[in-house]
Amino acid sequence: LPLPERALISRIRKQTRLAHPLRFSKGGNGQPVVVGIGDDASVLRIPRNHELLVTTDFSLEGVHFRRHWHPPESVGHRCLTRGLSDIAAMGGNPMAAFLSLALPAKLPQRWVDGFLRGLLKLAKRFNVQLAGGDTAESPNGVLADIVVVGSVPRGRAVLRSAARPGDRIYVTGQLGGSAATLALLRSGKRKLDPKSFRSHFFPAPRIEIGWNLREKRIATSMIDISDGLSTDLSHLCEESDCGAEIWEEAIPRARIGKAHEVDLDFALHGGEDYELLFTAPRKTRVPDTIAGIQITEIGQITRNRRIMLRRPSGATVKFEPRGWEHFRS
Amino acid sequence: LPLPERALISRIRKQTRLAHPLRFSKGGNGQPVVVGIGDDASVLRIPRNHELLVTTDFSLEGVHFRRHWHPPESVGHRCLTRGLSDIAAMGGNPMAAFLSLALPAKLPQRWVDGFLRGLLKLAKRFNVQLAGGDTAESPNGVLADIVVVGSVPRGRAVLRSAARPGDRIYVTGQLGGSAATLALLRSGKRKLDPKSFRSHFFPAPRIEIGWNLREKRIATSMIDISDGLSTDLSHLCEESDCGAEIWEEAIPRARIGKAHEVDLDFALHGGEDYELLFTAPRKTRVPDTIAGIQITEIGQITRNRRIMLRRPSGATVKFEPRGWEHFRS
Repeated sequence: LPLPERALISRIRKQTRLAHPLRFSKGGNGQPVVVGIGDDASVLRIPRNHELLVTTDFSLEGVHFRRHWHPPESVGHRCLTRGLSDIAAMGGNPMAAFLSLALPAKLPQRWVDGFLRGLLKLAKRFNVQLAGGDTAESPNGVLADIVVVGSVPRGRAVLRSAARPGDRIYVTGQLGGSAATLALLRSGKRKLDPKSFRSHFFPAPRIEIGWNLREKRIATSMIDISDGLSTDLSHLCEESDCGAEIWEEAIPRARIGKAHEVDLDFALHGGEDYELLFTAPRKTRVPDTIAGIQITEIGQITRNRRIMLRRPSGATVKFEPRGWEHFRS
Repeated sequence: LPLPERALISRIRKQTRLAHPLRFSKGGNGQPVVVGIGDDASVLRIPRNHELLVTTDFSLEGVHFRRHWHPPESVGHRCLTRGLSDIAAMGGNPMAAFLSLALPAKLPQRWVDGFLRGLLKLAKRFNVQLAGGDTAESPNGVLADIVVVGSVPRGRAVLRSAARPGDRIYVTGQLGGSAATLALLRSGKRKLDPKSFRSHFFPAPRIEIGWNLREKRIATSMIDISDGLSTDLSHLCEESDCGAEIWEEAIPRARIGKAHEVDLDFALHGGEDYELLFTAPRKTRVPDTIAGIQITEIGQITRNRRIMLRRPSGATVKFEPRGWEHFRS
């Protein structure tokens, strides 16, 4: 093995305690990973009568993060968040993650350590095992691809395609915090303390909420807000073949740092908040909070394919998806 | 969505006939992919009493392929081969693939088409569905990460770690063809016709053989030869805590183009042949061919941790792993 690969695998092994694959645990101790890092493929066990969820997400330097803006712990955390959030949006339970990681030859070891620390801390919080992956030397920049596999009871995954006219539309948490932070980073005016801007640097995947909404059969459809409210709502409406009306005043705007609420545009179009957008039938009682996070009704599904925004004045305007493209300028 | 992403997804959808996710196929028609491209995560069904296999493999421009050496069909084929070969080495049945693909802004559409054509043609041959993935714009070069998921009857995966002293060592097919072709490419002396150098440009993953060896309980341990015989044998011995003796004369050397057998060094150390290396108890009858491919006994597992090569003269020398590093110079 090339040296950086060997070092990385050794590091990953140490940090995950998967130093030796678990072999076959005949006892069926409930751990999903039967064979982890160190064989041609990993072996996982899916709970009975469950289906498998699989999602893959790139985190590329210069596209999804910048090394001079994002501490390595944040890059690792956000890398895994992207995958966990997709599992959350299906109402699933994450089981294991796989990391393909290509590193430039001259990358300091402490950067790799920080990256893995951030990723593995989040993995531990959700009892997700790092069960395998691939490593390579990157010709340019840090390249990561995270795979998260999860499970969901058979036939119960919450899809994007099952919203129905009359359903109410909800979001978790507050919106726009990540994009507003990015605007501050981009302005270059000051150094930001990641701890005060967690929605951007350490966003929380809404696993418990997605699980709860599926388990209690509240959500008819669901998507995570990774590309921005306007874009992800358009995905959901397209898959469900319906339209929507969003009430501008109802949109919960994030507060970042010590500032007031973020500008409306960040909440409407900013990506990478990793909140959930879901629909529920009009008569379904939806809790005000789930797992301590605010749930806000922000509009309703309509029959025609138009997506409209209702202004505080009562006027409605077209609500066009802006297409979040990370921080490409 | 950014335009290249939209175009790519549209292209992938057309080519896979997964234009619309299959939704829930209540009938249980045996197709593993319940929901494919187009939702937050894909939903797959694992056969009863089976475990899940997961493998991820990078294919990075400048590391695993070069655009002026490898036609796009070959890059797509080899990308998926890497994943399928890992599933083969576990004795598994591949079910679905996920492709994370980042493309430079200026990449010609016909290159993307060729890449997908090569990948999907191979996928079809093994009834593997392209069930999801991620797309991004790449700052530098084509970046692909392939995930293949497969299944294997519970507790029956063939691991690297179960070789036992006295077991005989076998390989499928012939070795060294891919590395010898690469040497020709590197020398730059002439243009190669990919059709005459298939072991490099279009290697065949040994799915049927791996499946057969597991199903008939022939193989005690197995690994695919992606990093070269010397390196992959060392992985197998390390995981099985044993050594090996290889008989130089027995090693089946590939023929490429119209040439004679490749040089011994290519067969001993060259990577990316994607043949299988496996062990079987001394008394087990191993067929001479499986699925039309030659199976060759090349040595035996020993108790001590040394890996030795027995020369035609009868002398034995240390058989050191050389560590295949693709075509990095």
